[in-house]
Order: sequence, then C-alpha cells, then structure tokens
Amino acid sequence: MKKNSVYIATSIDGYIADRNGRLDWLHSIPNPDMEDMGYASFMEKIDALVMGRVTFETVCSFDVDWPYTKPVFVLSNTLTEIPQSHQGKAFLMKGSLEEIIDEIHQKGHHHVYIDGGSTIQQFLKEDRIDEMIITTIPILLGGGASLFAETPTEFPFELVRSQTFLGQIVQNHYRRKRS
Amino acid sequence: MKKNSVYIATSIDGYIADRNGRLDWLHSIPNPDMEDMGYASFMEKIDALVMGRVTFETVCSFDVDWPYTKPVFVLSNTLTEIPQSHQGKAFLMKGSLEEIIDEIHQKGHHHVYIDGGSTIQQFLKEDRIDEMIITTIPILLGGGASLFAETPTEFPFELVRSQTFLGQIVQNHYRRKRS
Repeated sequence: MKKNSVYIATSIDGYIADRNGRLDWLHSIPNPDMEDMGYASFMEKIDALVMGRVTFETVCSFDVDWPYTKPVFVLSNTLTEIPQSHQGKAFLMKGSLEEIIDEIHQKGHHHVYIDGGSTIQQFLKEDRIDEMIITTIPILLGGGASLFAETPTEFPFELVRSQTFLGQIVQNHYRRKRS
Repeated sequence: MKKNSVYIATSIDGYIADRNGRLDWLHSIPNPDMEDMGYASFMEKIDALVMGRVTFETVCSFDVDWPYTKPVFVLSNTLTEIPQSHQGKAFLMKGSLEEIIDEIHQKGHHHVYIDGGSTIQQFLKEDRIDEMIITTIPILLGGGASLFAETPTEFPFELVRSQTFLGQIVQNHYRRKRS
C-alpha cells in the first residue's frame, strides 16, 4: 500500500520555524519523561524519507549523529552531490515529483515520510499527501516559515485521531479523503 | 475580570473563508443532531461582541434574523452609521483599539467576543486576545482569508482543553500565558 505521510510540528498559527529559522519553541513545553508523541512508532512504519535541501542541510548541521535509519531522498536543483559524510544514507533526486515518487517506489519503498516545508507544499499542491500527523505547540509565532502554501483546489481530509500530549500539545492525525 | 475571546472555525491550513469568501465548507461534516460545539454556552458567557465592517455586513446579509442578543460593536473607518434596521443592536466604533476597548468596558461589558479575521488580527497584533477557541474543520482550503497574520513578536498560550466533535472536528481552547 503506497502512502506519503507528513509528521510535523507547527505553532498555532501554522509556522514550522520561527522568523529566525529557529526551532527551540518546539521544546517550550516541559517534557521530563521525553514523551516522543508517536515519533518512534511513526519512524518504524515508514520505508524512506523525502526532504528538500534546506531540511537536509538543517539536519546535517545538528550536533548529533545522523538520526535516520531509513534512506533519505534529498530533492535539490542546486546540490550536485551528497557530501561524502552522508553518502549511502542520503541520496540526491532530481526530476518531477512523479518521476521521483516512481523511482522511490521502484526501489521498494512504499510508505514515504515527506518532510520540510517546501517539499510538503510541493507534494500538497499535486495532491500527493495521503496522511498528515500535525502536532500543535501552544504558541503564536507571528512569523516564520509556514507549513502550508496555496493549493490549486481544496482537499478534504478525515480525522483519524486526536491526542493531547503533556496536557498542552494537540496532535491531529488526518487522512486524505478521496472519493 | 476583563477578557477578550476569540471563538472561530478554521480549515487545517488556517483559513476562515475560502477563496470565494464562502463558508459552506464549515458544514462539510454531517451534524444530524445540530451539535453546537460549545457556541451557545460561549455566547451566554460574553457581554458584547466586536467585529469589523466586513463581518458585520456578512452577518447582515444572512437570510436569518439578527443572531445576537448582546450588543455588537462594529469597527469601521468607512461606515458613517449603522443601518436603521440594526440600530439599537449594533453600534459603530471608531478610534484606537485602546480607546474602543476602554469605551466598551466603561459601558459595563467585560467579557468581549472578538470576531472577524481582520479584527482578530488587529487585536492579536496588540496582544489583546486572552483566549482563543479554535475549531478545526478537516479540510485543506488552499487559499482564502487567513485567521492569523504576522505579529510583532511571539505570544505563548496554554491549552485549556481539546475536544473532538462529531468524530472529525477538533476544538482547541487556548489561554494567553502571561508571565
């Protein structure tokens, strides 16, 4: 069963990074027991990730080991190759979304995690997102990078589940409703 | 206790009207028992409403009787008077937000319902919203009138309650967290 999923955190006003590109507000709610809000179980289910260059470079800049055990496909028109440090883990992809998705499927990856603002927006524009797990941090950022952009038409979703974590963070799981 | 509250429905992508200004998507989830999602109990608690001219004229255009039993203060720089049909129910206000709020409080109205996209945005910009009850319809509109606009700084809120109605509609109740 082929599926493209989004798993992302936003502010109440729909930003995924603040106006300085920072993400520290994601951790503004005390989380003493390291509640992962379903992240590990989501990561187990997926076969691969797709992200844009900006998200890839952001993850590379984190002062931690490479966090993914599944292949990461990086969409970029400007990168010519994946840095040596990440070869074998991340793979550069070019082409239309359709070509890219076909190639990922041909490699045997069916459930794909679509990550990063502009990549998610591209996939949504072409109605290629089947599932969105959106975690809302109770803050109004008032500016920054938006999760959503305009789409050519409206797309109904259905709510699969809504959960509250740490008494403060609501996570809504939506599935694209196709007639 | 003085309080300015927002009670509004949005799409997943934060629109309060679609790109044609239409609201019919608000009723896209079957609601056979006319679940009101807390609206009547919210309306009982408030003392008055504040809305912009656009929202006022939209409500006037609805083919129903005037829906409010509390005074409605209409913010407008272009209207010179409230139409005769609505005098005694709606009242024109001009001035800065501070002046307007002071005048409403002086009339004995302490809990005020702030309605309409641009009015909510004005109040948020000046950090004058104390409570937001946001009801999310599971649809991506992909364009239209946004609930939120940029604000000069970020504002933390706290989640008071999250409820799911009709198995599909999540309503989050946030309170401004002031240190």
